[in-house]
Amino acid sequence: MEHKLIYADNSATTPVSRAALDAMLPLFSTGYGNPSAIYSLGQEAKKCLEASRRKVAAALGARNNEIFFTSGGTEGDNWALFSVCEQYAPRGRHIISTQIEHSAVLRTLEKLEERGFEVTLLPPAENGMVSAGDLRRAIRADTILVSIMTANNVTGTILPIKELCAAAHERRVLFHTDAVQAAGHIPIGVRETGVDLLTISAHKFHGPKGAGALYARVPLIPFPLIFGGGQEKGRRSGTENVPLIAGMAAALEEAVQNMEENNRRISALRDRLIAGVLAIPGTRLTGHPEERLPGLASFVFEGLEGVEGQNLVVLLDREGICVSSGSACSVGSVNPPAPLLAMGYGQKLARSALRVSLSVYNTGDEVDRILALLPGIVETARNAGRPGF
Amino acid sequence: MEHKLIYADNSATTPVSRAALDAMLPLFSTGYGNPSAIYSLGQEAKKCLEASRRKVAAALGARNNEIFFTSGGTEGDNWALFSVCEQYAPRGRHIISTQIEHSAVLRTLEKLEERGFEVTLLPPAENGMVSAGDLRRAIRADTILVSIMTANNVTGTILPIKELCAAAHERRVLFHTDAVQAAGHIPIGVRETGVDLLTISAHKFHGPKGAGALYARVPLIPFPLIFGGGQEKGRRSGTENVPLIAGMAAALEEAVQNMEENNRRISALRDRLIAGVLAIPGTRLTGHPEERLPGLASFVFEGLEGVEGQNLVVLLDREGICVSSGSACSVGSVNPPAPLLAMGYGQKLARSALRVSLSVYNTGDEVDRILALLPGIVETARNAGRPGF
Repeated sequence: MEHKLIYADNSATTPVSRAALDAMLPLFSTGYGNPSAIYSLGQEAKKCLEASRRKVAAALGARNNEIFFTSGGTEGDNWALFSVCEQYAPRGRHIISTQIEHSAVLRTLEKLEERGFEVTLLPPAENGMVSAGDLRRAIRADTILVSIMTANNVTGTILPIKELCAAAHERRVLFHTDAVQAAGHIPIGVRETGVDLLTISAHKFHGPKGAGALYARVPLIPFPLIFGGGQEKGRRSGTENVPLIAGMAAALEEAVQNMEENNRRISALRDRLIAGVLAIPGTRLTGHPEERLPGLASFVFEGLEGVEGQNLVVLLDREGICVSSGSACSVGSVNPPAPLLAMGYGQKLARSALRVSLSVYNTGDEVDRILALLPGIVETARNAGRPGF
Repeated sequence: MEHKLIYADNSATTPVSRAALDAMLPLFSTGYGNPSAIYSLGQEAKKCLEASRRKVAAALGARNNEIFFTSGGTEGDNWALFSVCEQYAPRGRHIISTQIEHSAVLRTLEKLEERGFEVTLLPPAENGMVSAGDLRRAIRADTILVSIMTANNVTGTILPIKELCAAAHERRVLFHTDAVQAAGHIPIGVRETGVDLLTISAHKFHGPKGAGALYARVPLIPFPLIFGGGQEKGRRSGTENVPLIAGMAAALEEAVQNMEENNRRISALRDRLIAGVLAIPGTRLTGHPEERLPGLASFVFEGLEGVEGQNLVVLLDREGICVSSGSACSVGSVNPPAPLLAMGYGQKLARSALRVSLSVYNTGDEVDRILALLPGIVETARNAGRPGF
C-alpha cells in the first residue's frame, strides 16, 4: 500500500494555504502594478498593499503605521536588532538575549559584538523556560535592548513574554521578540504583551516564503537596514513584494480567525503523538510540558549511541514522513540543536533530537502512522549505533 | 469602444510571464519543502534552488558559485556596496559612482558617507553617457570601488560598462554594476564586461517581485548584510524563497533565449514611438539616441509651463495607458528625475519628463494608440499650464 506523504515539519516551513494562494495569484500577471506608480494599476497595487498592512496590523493588535514589510523573519530580526543598536548606542551598548534564540538573532548579536556591543545571553531552565528574575538581574544601566523569542523553534516552549517585557520596561529598556514560530499559532497581541518590536515570517503560518513583517511600536521608528527608493515610509526600500505580502496577510488573517478551533484539533493530535512517543522506552519530551506551541513536540531518545537524530529523520523519510532533527535553519549542520545543549542535555542526547511539528493539514491517521512506525525505527537506529553492528 | 489596458511602464515593473508562473506555482503548495531539510521534500527544493542558480549563472555567463540570491535589486545594490566597503576599508575609503544611479545605490552611498567613506559622483554628458576618461581621472590611490549602472532607468541609456570596468581594473579597483534595468533586455555577460559585482532584479524581466541575485566574481566573497541560519553559503541567511527564485530563473532563461528576436520587435516599436512623439512640436528625446535599451523611450516637452510631467501620466491613465514621469522608485516624489537634472535639463523641462517602456507584450496597435492620443494630451497639459486657464 502506497502512503501519501506525511508532512510533519511545519516549524521548518509550511505549504501555502488556498486562501493565501488565492490572494497572490491575481497579483502576478494581472494586478502587477508598481505601488509607487501614480496610474490606476499602480494605485490598485498600493491599495492592496495597504489592505494587507491593515490585516497584519489587526492580527497583531497593532496600528497600521506600526507594520513594516520585510523579506522574511531573518531580515526582520536583523533589522530590529541593528536598528535599535544604531539608534540607541549613545545611551548604552549592552544587549540581553537568551541562549535559545534562533540563529537570525544569535548571529546578528555576534556581529553587534564585533561592532563593540556587549551581549548577555540568559540560560534557559531545564524545561526551556527563561525567567523574568534572571532578566531583571541581568539588566544594567547601559542595557538598551532585550530580545527574547516568543516560542522556541526546537522545543516549542512558549516564553512568558508579557512578564519578560514588563521586566525590561521597568528599567526603560526596549523589548524585541522573535515571534516567527508563534505568529498565527498562538495569540501574540502586541498591546497585551507590550513588546516594542516583533518579527513574523509568512512561511511559518501557511503564507509564502520571502515575506515577513516587523512591528515597531509608535513612536519607535526603525532605522533602515536597506536603503533606496524610500518605500515603507523610507524605512525599507525596494519595490514592495505585493503578491507575497497579500498572501501573508490572507494566511495570517485565516490563521487568527481559526486559531481557537485549529488549536483544539492540533494540540489534541500533538498530545496523542506525545503520549505515543513517550511509550517508547528511554524517550523524553523536551521543553515545557504545558507551555508549548499547539503543534510542536520534540523528543530525545536515550541509547541512540553513536548515531544522530538525523538517522531517525532519514529512516522516517523512507516511509514518506517529513520531520526534523531539531531546526531546519542551520544549513548542513551536524551540530546538535543549541537550545537543547543550553537546557542541559548532553551532546549525545541532544544529537538524538526529533522534532515533529503538526499543522491544521495533519490528521489523526497520520499521527497513528508515525506512532506505528517510530518504535521500530528507534529500535533500528539504536541497533545501528551499537558497536559491531 | 472600450480599450484594453496598455501597460507601457515595464521599467517600473513587469507582469510575471507564463513560464515564470509555471515554474513557481507547483512550489507553493506541493514542492514547498525547506531546502535545509534533509528529507526528500527538502532535498527536492534544494535541487530546484540549485537548478535555478545554474540558470541564472548561465544567463549571466557566470559560475554557479558566483550567484547569491536576494530579495531584489535594492538589497543586491545595498549588499554589494556595504560588503565591499566593509571588506576593503583598510585599503581605502573612496568610492566612485555617478549622478545618474538608482536611489538604491545613491542612498546607500550617502549612508556610507555617514560611516566615513568619501564618494565621488561622476556627472553624465548631456546624452546621459558616463565617460571612462572621467572615471580614470577620478580614481585615487584610496579608491576601493566603482559602482556604475549598466543602463539608466530614466533615459534607458546603456553605459560602456566594459570600458568603464577596464578603467577601474587598470588601477586595481573593484567594479560593481547595477544591471537591474539591463538584465534580460541586453547582453550583460560578466566575462565579457569583466565586472566584479552585478545586481539583477526579477520583476524587471517578467519574473516576480521579491527576488533578485547578486553576482560576485570568484574569489570575491561578499560579506553578509543579513545574518542567521547560514543559507547561501553563509552569505545571505533566511529560508530561501524557492518559488520566486525558480520564477526568476525561468523568466531570465526565457528572456535571454528570446532576446534577439524580442529586441528586434521591441526596438522597432520603440523607434516608431520615438518618431511619432518627436513629431509633436517642442518635444525632445532624452538620453543617448542609439545606445539605449530596446524598450525604453523618454521625452521632455517644452512649454509645459507650471505643470509637471505627472499630469501627462494622469491624462494617459484616464485613457487606460500606463506610463511614468521618470522612475517609479521615488515614492510619492514630486521631484523631477535626478538623472535629467544631472544631464543639464533645467527643473522645468525635467519635470515634464515622460517615460514609455515597452515589453514583448506590447503591440504596434498599442503604440499607435499612444501616438494617436499623446498630441492632444500634451496640448491639454500645455493649456492647463498657462496662466489664467
